[in-house]
Amino acid sequence: MPNTFGHLFRVTTFGESHGAGIGVIIDGCPPRIPISIEAIQFDLDRRRPGQSKIVTQRKEADQAEILSGMHEGMTTGAPIEILVRNHDARSSDYQEMQALYRPSHADYTYDAKYGIRSVQGGGRSSARETIGRVAAGAVAKQVLAHFYPELEVIAYCDQIYNRRSEVDPNVVQFSEVESNIVRWPKASEADELIKLIETVRSEGDSVGGIVGCVVRGVPAGWGEPVFDRLEADLAKAMMSLPATKGFEIGSGFGSVKMRGSEHNDPFYQSASGKIRTRTNHSGGVQGGISNGENLLMRIAFKPTATIAQGQETVSKSGESAEIKARGRHDACVLPRAVPMVEAMARLVLVDHFLRQRAIDWK
Amino acid sequence: MPNTFGHLFRVTTFGESHGAGIGVIIDGCPPRIPISIEAIQFDLDRRRPGQSKIVTQRKEADQAEILSGMHEGMTTGAPIEILVRNHDARSSDYQEMQALYRPSHADYTYDAKYGIRSVQGGGRSSARETIGRVAAGAVAKQVLAHFYPELEVIAYCDQIYNRRSEVDPNVVQFSEVESNIVRWPKASEADELIKLIETVRSEGDSVGGIVGCVVRGVPAGWGEPVFDRLEADLAKAMMSLPATKGFEIGSGFGSVKMRGSEHNDPFYQSASGKIRTRTNHSGGVQGGISNGENLLMRIAFKPTATIAQGQETVSKSGESAEIKARGRHDACVLPRAVPMVEAMARLVLVDHFLRQRAIDWK
Amino acid sequence: MPNTFGHLFRVTTFGESHGAGIGVIIDGCPPRIPISIEAIQFDLDRRRPGQSKIVTQRKEADQAEILSGMHEGMTTGAPIEILVRNHDARSSDYQEMQALYRPSHADYTYDAKYGIRSVQGGGRSSARETIGRVAAGAVAKQVLAHFYPELEVIAYCDQIYNRRSEVDPNVVQFSEVESNIVRWPKASEADELIKLIETVRSEGDSVGGIVGCVVRGVPAGWGEPVFDRLEADLAKAMMSLPATKGFEIGSGFGSVKMRGSEHNDPFYQSASGKIRTRTNHSGGVQGGISNGENLLMRIAFKPTATIAQGQETVSKSGESAEIKARGRHDACVLPRAVPMVEAMARLVLVDHFLRQRAIDWK
Amino acid sequence: MPNTFGHLFRVTTFGESHGAGIGVIIDGCPPRIPISIEAIQFDLDRRRPGQSKIVTQRKEADQAEILSGMHEGMTTGAPIEILVRNHDARSSDYQEMQALYRPSHADYTYDAKYGIRSVQGGGRSSARETIGRVAAGAVAKQVLAHFYPELEVIAYCDQIYNRRSEVDPNVVQFSEVESNIVRWPKASEADELIKLIETVRSEGDSVGGIVGCVVRGVPAGWGEPVFDRLEADLAKAMMSLPATKGFEIGSGFGSVKMRGSEHNDPFYQSASGKIRTRTNHSGGVQGGISNGENLLMRIAFKPTATIAQGQETVSKSGESAEIKARGRHDACVLPRAVPMVEAMARLVLVDHFLRQRAIDWK
Repeated sequence: MPNTFGHLFRVTTFGESHGAGIGVIIDGCPPRIPISIEAIQFDLDRRRPGQSKIVTQRKEADQAEILSGMHEGMTTGAPIEILVRNHDARSSDYQEMQALYRPSHADYTYDAKYGIRSVQGGGRSSARETIGRVAAGAVAKQVLAHFYPELEVIAYCDQIYNRRSEVDPNVVQFSEVESNIVRWPKASEADELIKLIETVRSEGDSVGGIVGCVVRGVPAGWGEPVFDRLEADLAKAMMSLPATKGFEIGSGFGSVKMRGSEHNDPFYQSASGKIRTRTNHSGGVQGGISNGENLLMRIAFKPTATIAQGQETVSKSGESAEIKARGRHDACVLPRAVPMVEAMARLVLVDHFLRQRAIDWK
Repeated sequence: MPNTFGHLFRVTTFGESHGAGIGVIIDGCPPRIPISIEAIQFDLDRRRPGQSKIVTQRKEADQAEILSGMHEGMTTGAPIEILVRNHDARSSDYQEMQALYRPSHADYTYDAKYGIRSVQGGGRSSARETIGRVAAGAVAKQVLAHFYPELEVIAYCDQIYNRRSEVDPNVVQFSEVESNIVRWPKASEADELIKLIETVRSEGDSVGGIVGCVVRGVPAGWGEPVFDRLEADLAKAMMSLPATKGFEIGSGFGSVKMRGSEHNDPFYQSASGKIRTRTNHSGGVQGGISNGENLLMRIAFKPTATIAQGQETVSKSGESAEIKARGRHDACVLPRAVPMVEAMARLVLVDHFLRQRAIDWK
Repeated sequence: MPNTFGHLFRVTTFGESHGAGIGVIIDGCPPRIPISIEAIQFDLDRRRPGQSKIVTQRKEADQAEILSGMHEGMTTGAPIEILVRNHDARSSDYQEMQALYRPSHADYTYDAKYGIRSVQGGGRSSARETIGRVAAGAVAKQVLAHFYPELEVIAYCDQIYNRRSEVDPNVVQFSEVESNIVRWPKASEADELIKLIETVRSEGDSVGGIVGCVVRGVPAGWGEPVFDRLEADLAKAMMSLPATKGFEIGSGFGSVKMRGSEHNDPFYQSASGKIRTRTNHSGGVQGGISNGENLLMRIAFKPTATIAQGQETVSKSGESAEIKARGRHDACVLPRAVPMVEAMARLVLVDHFLRQRAIDWK
Repeated sequence: MPNTFGHLFRVTTFGESHGAGIGVIIDGCPPRIPISIEAIQFDLDRRRPGQSKIVTQRKEADQAEILSGMHEGMTTGAPIEILVRNHDARSSDYQEMQALYRPSHADYTYDAKYGIRSVQGGGRSSARETIGRVAAGAVAKQVLAHFYPELEVIAYCDQIYNRRSEVDPNVVQFSEVESNIVRWPKASEADELIKLIETVRSEGDSVGGIVGCVVRGVPAGWGEPVFDRLEADLAKAMMSLPATKGFEIGSGFGSVKMRGSEHNDPFYQSASGKIRTRTNHSGGVQGGISNGENLLMRIAFKPTATIAQGQETVSKSGESAEIKARGRHDACVLPRAVPMVEAMARLVLVDHFLRQRAIDWK
């Protein structure tokens, strides 16, 4: 339902950007899993505003408090509520929004849907809503690690504006991505990207890009053959993040220019006896189910809607007006989107892991 | 769950390619909606094998029988079961599959997941599984038409292999798309595409492409701001179709090379007093909710995995082998994917329509 | 949702009493479970009309056809559709219903809810709707038997009208219950009950009663502590059967006259080392979770609403009228309710079994 | 799922008795409904420990904080989180529980299910868990009042131990029920009941009883004909409350001794033109759907498991022991159960109201 994601590992988020707080209930987490709050805080810090000079300067500690579901550092099987209080909410920045619809924001559509709107900070459409997702994703990470220590999910900026990383997702390293504030997988190039973003911001403008995401160590057999295909659930997960416009898995849109004879992934048996594919155009899924190869995804993010330039718009009553954003914002959302993408990938994976566990035949 | 789609207009499909039959239960359909079985059959016929020379020649009438939920041509509010019996199931074509894994098919992943497999025809991964979706989509079409006579969903082949249509989705016409067997939106070019597909088939190969889909006449206010964003549910819907590798809405992956100042859609008031946007990079959704502009989607389909050329593979026990497909199949799945895409779009729309109706404030 | 039951072992039923057929889709059944269609037919035959002189004489073979989800006698993990065609549908018996509301039937409430109604045979409110449940329950039985061969679910008539069985549920035997057409747990008394029912019918009247149900061999740990308590799901399951008016577990309404010191079930360790309770007022559940003792339930069924005596009612337009049932019916629904109760109990159990499996910590 | 209730008006609770706090997320609440936090607090106060001399003396203000989903006193359509912090948590009272299983508590079953347990205060099985339900029920009350000002839900103690109220539920008054601390519907008799409870407590014992609940002003047409019958969802709702052992609607278990000719509710047209029934053995539901008559329910609560007398039990390792409760507790849970029953009834009603709204044909 609207604010719930997942079927067995079920996450429900709440909270507005400028309300009392933001958070999440995780229901269905298996018991007896050790959970470190530091690990949750680590991912929240990666997503946090003000973490570097290239992201929004809103000052929020984003300190997580676990209100329930834990006993002496372990999950109990009870719902886990994680709460982050808001502190630096500046409603005054958002006065104008009450009257004018910000282009490519959700102001107008909220009014159409609900007939009412928390004018401050975009309500549920704010990137702050993703705090709950990232916190839940950090729990999912620890659950997955408990059962599959080899499984790793790494997201990174694969393209910003017209600059592509051309990194090989199969070898990208978390430490290299995290070594630079732009989360560029080739650290030596990071300064160029930082400069690009700063230039765009100085022009009162914004840019988007593509987040790449690789999952290594997924066992074969997760997913479903029809509606809940692994790639379908991943697509939904990613397209539910703010500012996303596209999703692809494996060869993605590039598959279109290939012939079947090129695109098909031949099977072979590895030295260790495992059945593998020589290529991975499938992106780790076949018929909606993981085949044990790396999951490879790419997610397109549009340029941030909030820009400092004047733009044409209308008021609630339909009168023409010009609007210029004054709220703090990111000129490029990509670096902060990286932990969000990882979190969503993990929420999909842990859910399908539990689903498979329920019907496991081995 | 695995074989159910939708929250209020809830569709559950069943059936295998070479079993007794294929079908669907639609639960949650509002009562007193006139439903024409001819209209259901019309869409099933568009999806049917053997409908033209460029698609698989399997002979199936795909005749729909409505077993429940109707009274004198109207829905009763009870679940609607639609059943299509299989007739031309040739198990012999599929003997080899028991032993060898077809590359980029679901044989290996099914074995990994279930430890058992209906070897004939790919079981649930066959395109025949989409019969239930198309039948349900045809019911959704009639429900939507009852409440929103202006709403129309049109899908079409926007690209096949390296050939793009460059059609303007805002003006594409259903009649023109349906006037040619390749469902190309520019009918005058259809012969070229037919030739392309025939050439590929004669080479024992296959191609993919991009299906475009436009929805006109959606009111503002459908969708949800967080997990069940309209674009997220559409992405899941499309990525749950066989052979899909990518999804984009509005500017999609193209948004990446735009600045915010170009990408944002300025608001204005139309002559009729409606609030509209000058451009539609958003693709009809803002913050996960429809804004009344056309929904614009593109879905990438990989080249058909079944090809007549020899390919490297392994047997269940891991021994190297060569495999060459003998089952009937499509060299290009796109023309038959068009009604599937429309059906999935409608299933998402009718569900969000009912969801909005439940909380409507007007 | 309306016609779906269960979370992981998910059952969706369809069909009307006098339509083309009745059936069910079972989604989420684990793969590689041997399923005998004879075992399904066995339970359908127990539920069937015309099986003995004391139940409705409608002639239906109720022959089950499995349309999907099986391969060589084993489940494949795909959805299982089971279909039963209707044969002896006599619409003429139901003409009067179009005009007059039958007292304590669903005619009036259907009109209020849907504004339309399948007048023949009560649509979804007919006892024929339970065919899908019983078929699904028979599959659940085989799944449970695969994993828990000791688990047995036995229902029986514990009271008919004013006659109580006073049987000890802990020792009641399936063979004794099934040895007589009234499904009385003390076979030697069955003739009395048959006579009672025949007398009531000869008077154009009807009676209700209480179905008892015991489940032996449930492991400790199934259920949930809050909303999805095992007894809550069992209560919903039973109260969703036609004609039910009450549910109790363990001491039930009788607990009210006990003190805590009498009612509490003391723990002890059995000779085999198992932790057990000396009494079982809890009825096998504590805090919503099974404790390994027998589950003990009782379900109240009202007297059949269809009676041959004249009754006061109104027409759709509100005019006073007298109505006298002419359709075939049961003077006492209890004997045929027994397999329905068992089916619903098993659907709850198999679902909670799979749920527990997903989070199992052992 | 485990901690979620409802399909469209969806309530997820969290929190343990002796953790940081307890609360609820309400998802799917329609927008633009005025909500008074005082009204929420009013119901929380009715449920609160320490509210009178006959209930547990734990000191908790149970002050509700709304963290999200509201704007200037109105719902926004976003999820509403309500949080109540714990204050008077005395873990020392519960030390013994770590080692010994309290009879008829959930200690043993939690260990069986989860292999871990928040030993203090019974974790999720504490009556404190119902704070989230009562808070959500108070929101549901205000939503229902917004659309159906006449609808009223009144619960009351209908029986305590062997003392019956014999009140007519059709005329019972909220003010009279609330006028006395035992929530007895005949205020003049309240002192007798208070004395009864005090006597039982002085003996270190406990008693249960029956809570009656009437709903007046429900329109005809709410509910579903099959699994989600209104009475089935009400049964689940009530049987999910701690300490419940039985549920009945309308004639309930009493129906068993009636003939169909007595039990059927004849229809007539009232002076105002409304179709009504002369009797109400159906308890306001026919075929799972409300018929516009009063909903009449009775719920059996067992005697409180926590008693001050010594009882036989075992330790986690199975050794025999005697246990005597030291935690604060209620000798009779009934007076505090009354607002819980009302809350659960409203959660079911508001959900079915929204479900009916989604498919409404009028």
